[in-house]
Amino acid sequence: MSESMILAGDHLLTMDATNSVIADGAVLIEDGRIAAVGKLREISADNPSTPVKKIADSVLMPGIVNAHAHSGFLRGTAEHLPVWDWLTLHINPMHRVLQPHEAEAASWLCYAESVLGGTTAVVDMWRFMEGSAKAAEAIGNRLVAVPYVGEHPDYNYFDTLDMNEAMIETWHGKAGGRVNVWVGLEHLFYADEAGQRRAVELAKKHGTGFHTHCSEARIELAEFERRYGKRPMYVLDDLGFFETPLAMIAHGVWLDSAEIEFIAKRRVSVAHNPVSNMKLASGIALVGEMLAAGVAVGIGTDGEKENNNFDMFEEMKVASLLGKLKDLDAAAMDSWQVLRMATAIGLDAEIGSIEPGKRADIIAVRADTPRMTPLYGEGPYFNLQHNLVHAVRGSDVAMTMIDGQIVVEDGELKTADLGEIIAEVRKVAPGLFARRAAFLAENAGGIRQWTD
Amino acid sequence: MSESMILAGDHLLTMDATNSVIADGAVLIEDGRIAAVGKLREISADNPSTPVKKIADSVLMPGIVNAHAHSGFLRGTAEHLPVWDWLTLHINPMHRVLQPHEAEAASWLCYAESVLGGTTAVVDMWRFMEGSAKAAEAIGNRLVAVPYVGEHPDYNYFDTLDMNEAMIETWHGKAGGRVNVWVGLEHLFYADEAGQRRAVELAKKHGTGFHTHCSEARIELAEFERRYGKRPMYVLDDLGFFETPLAMIAHGVWLDSAEIEFIAKRRVSVAHNPVSNMKLASGIALVGEMLAAGVAVGIGTDGEKENNNFDMFEEMKVASLLGKLKDLDAAAMDSWQVLRMATAIGLDAEIGSIEPGKRADIIAVRADTPRMTPLYGEGPYFNLQHNLVHAVRGSDVAMTMIDGQIVVEDGELKTADLGEIIAEVRKVAPGLFARRAAFLAENAGGIRQWTD
Repeated sequence: MSESMILAGDHLLTMDATNSVIADGAVLIEDGRIAAVGKLREISADNPSTPVKKIADSVLMPGIVNAHAHSGFLRGTAEHLPVWDWLTLHINPMHRVLQPHEAEAASWLCYAESVLGGTTAVVDMWRFMEGSAKAAEAIGNRLVAVPYVGEHPDYNYFDTLDMNEAMIETWHGKAGGRVNVWVGLEHLFYADEAGQRRAVELAKKHGTGFHTHCSEARIELAEFERRYGKRPMYVLDDLGFFETPLAMIAHGVWLDSAEIEFIAKRRVSVAHNPVSNMKLASGIALVGEMLAAGVAVGIGTDGEKENNNFDMFEEMKVASLLGKLKDLDAAAMDSWQVLRMATAIGLDAEIGSIEPGKRADIIAVRADTPRMTPLYGEGPYFNLQHNLVHAVRGSDVAMTMIDGQIVVEDGELKTADLGEIIAEVRKVAPGLFARRAAFLAENAGGIRQWTD
Repeated sequence: MSESMILAGDHLLTMDATNSVIADGAVLIEDGRIAAVGKLREISADNPSTPVKKIADSVLMPGIVNAHAHSGFLRGTAEHLPVWDWLTLHINPMHRVLQPHEAEAASWLCYAESVLGGTTAVVDMWRFMEGSAKAAEAIGNRLVAVPYVGEHPDYNYFDTLDMNEAMIETWHGKAGGRVNVWVGLEHLFYADEAGQRRAVELAKKHGTGFHTHCSEARIELAEFERRYGKRPMYVLDDLGFFETPLAMIAHGVWLDSAEIEFIAKRRVSVAHNPVSNMKLASGIALVGEMLAAGVAVGIGTDGEKENNNFDMFEEMKVASLLGKLKDLDAAAMDSWQVLRMATAIGLDAEIGSIEPGKRADIIAVRADTPRMTPLYGEGPYFNLQHNLVHAVRGSDVAMTMIDGQIVVEDGELKTADLGEIIAEVRKVAPGLFARRAAFLAENAGGIRQWTD
């Protein structure tokens, strides 16, 4: 935790209930929390002995929340396949041979890239997540660790619920509350009935969230119909998943209007992954309908193999673009809606806006770039929100603060050696690829799926 | 022009006919042209006295061509409207009051942003383009200047064909051949019959290209039907536009399959603008069909007000994503196709690949980033092309060379003062907005369109 300080920028985007923007704004930070917000001259007059860090030519805003990601380093090596073929040939064989030290190297890389691009919190579904938790503890990001669980004799190459429970017991609420652990399930079809029941029980017993992929690809619908005679959201509800403290579905591309109304009532959240949904040709989620129905929708990048980066500014832009394309309506998916989805999706009441009492998760975006020129934080040409969503890239982030700790400064990672993180991945990647190739040589056609 | 030098990187993406990638590759550059391409050890052994510039941890590739852009600084101030309303209320009133010094400031900003992001050539449709040509001459980018012409009594607030011809006479082929001037027309409907005829004649007389917006918004189709009883491509052909030396259509979102076959035969090029087409809710162009038919398709960002940046790496990614979404086919719009559209669209036979005899328009992309980790330029996990299209951003460009001159080095603009360029736009923007506001106060509802 840091000492008290005053952080100041040219524009302070609070993301409070009225989307206030404070010109020459400042934030008083004490013990990792926001103690006061206002004009720099007022905050510094009230706290004359507190040091001021003014980030010249910058916009301060709440840290970005990546609502659905996977650590990994298959980047660019698993392309041009629809989601289930791609799982069969590339992804699940990788899971079969993945080792803990490789999984940890992937999380270091993912979280380093994330904080450099202004993402302060990552919901990461990944494997052997003790290593991920250690990476988050060191790098300084907020982490919702969601083990990639398979609990089924046919899909026994993921983490298990035993591993998930051990992770909860070891890491939930640790690193000053920055690391939390939820119950994860790769997909409902990857657990047998006992596994499904136990996943629900685990989340209830430990008071954690629950996260799974659902309704990503259209072909899931027919299989839900065949197995259960119902659409996916009613099945998850029947099985008790929506009785968990916080259920979040990744994708939800194929939810229909009735399912959307239903999950709004059941207070289920959705992580929307526009780049992944386009790249894997999954489809366009009805995000406008979800928001109108009151569903809490977050934005996620998905993994390095589906995207292929963790730039949440790019993801915000594509969320806006895809929303406008969906109904050929240029007024759809307003920039404020997009910013809110990317910051305050309700996973953690302590973050999401720059207001007194919240955790000090704050980023500074450079305003001295062509992409931010011109920039107006008030008046008739007010374009700050549009520039952030449509012009800025993650590389424009000058500073990232999490829990009051400066993790990125002048665009450089301060808490770990980026060169070493990259070098470690370069070192371990060939071994993973070689073991996967050996596995595939003995198992032609990859790993059988329910689609086979 | 520069002295002789050898430029070297870890991977050299030639974009030659077989998409060769040379590990530890190098380029011998003499008088702004590529004299030899090969392994660094061979090139340097053959040229022992030529200085070597090795860019560590980098990919060398041909400079990117932005096939359709507009200079400007309305960024983020004209949002959430479909294209024709947006023209009426924001854009055309801006044209009505724009002054040459403002137009020049906009081009300095646009070209600076472009070269910083690895774009070496810009097809810019803009106003009072003497200022644009001066900006390109100084910054060092290649420019196809296309005046925004209106030649019609109802749309008399653009450049005129007289201005366009004066630009051709003054600037075509200048700045060592880096600046060329084509004949432009904002839209066919913005010229009367005499203007349409003269535009065709001008391009033929001076041997220049011709560029116009067409089939961007669906509502154009009905108006073409009403006026001419035909779809747009046949109308442009009837009027002689496809007899010009090189006709390039911007957008072409609503071209149907028959029009695509037709323009393939007539050797008409198309500038595809995926971000703009999503943002303005214009629709999805049939780019896959165009490529299959043999149409030369380039990729453009469109303007700062439609995008809202000039990052061609982002544009490549969205071109790939939109192509995959179009037919829900994850194998559509291969990364190689995307790279070729963004580099070699046939506007200039002297650029587009790193091969002996071509102009030395070369960029270096950093490979020491999480986004480029891991990176394989050969072998079974070959992912260089996918990383470039889906993971890299313009800010990863370390070096930009145009005609053998290093314009960007270590990510910094070397040929002009970026801070001064930004300061000038900040200074002049309020005046333009104020004059536009005054005009709109006296002309409620903006400028009448053919849609009124």
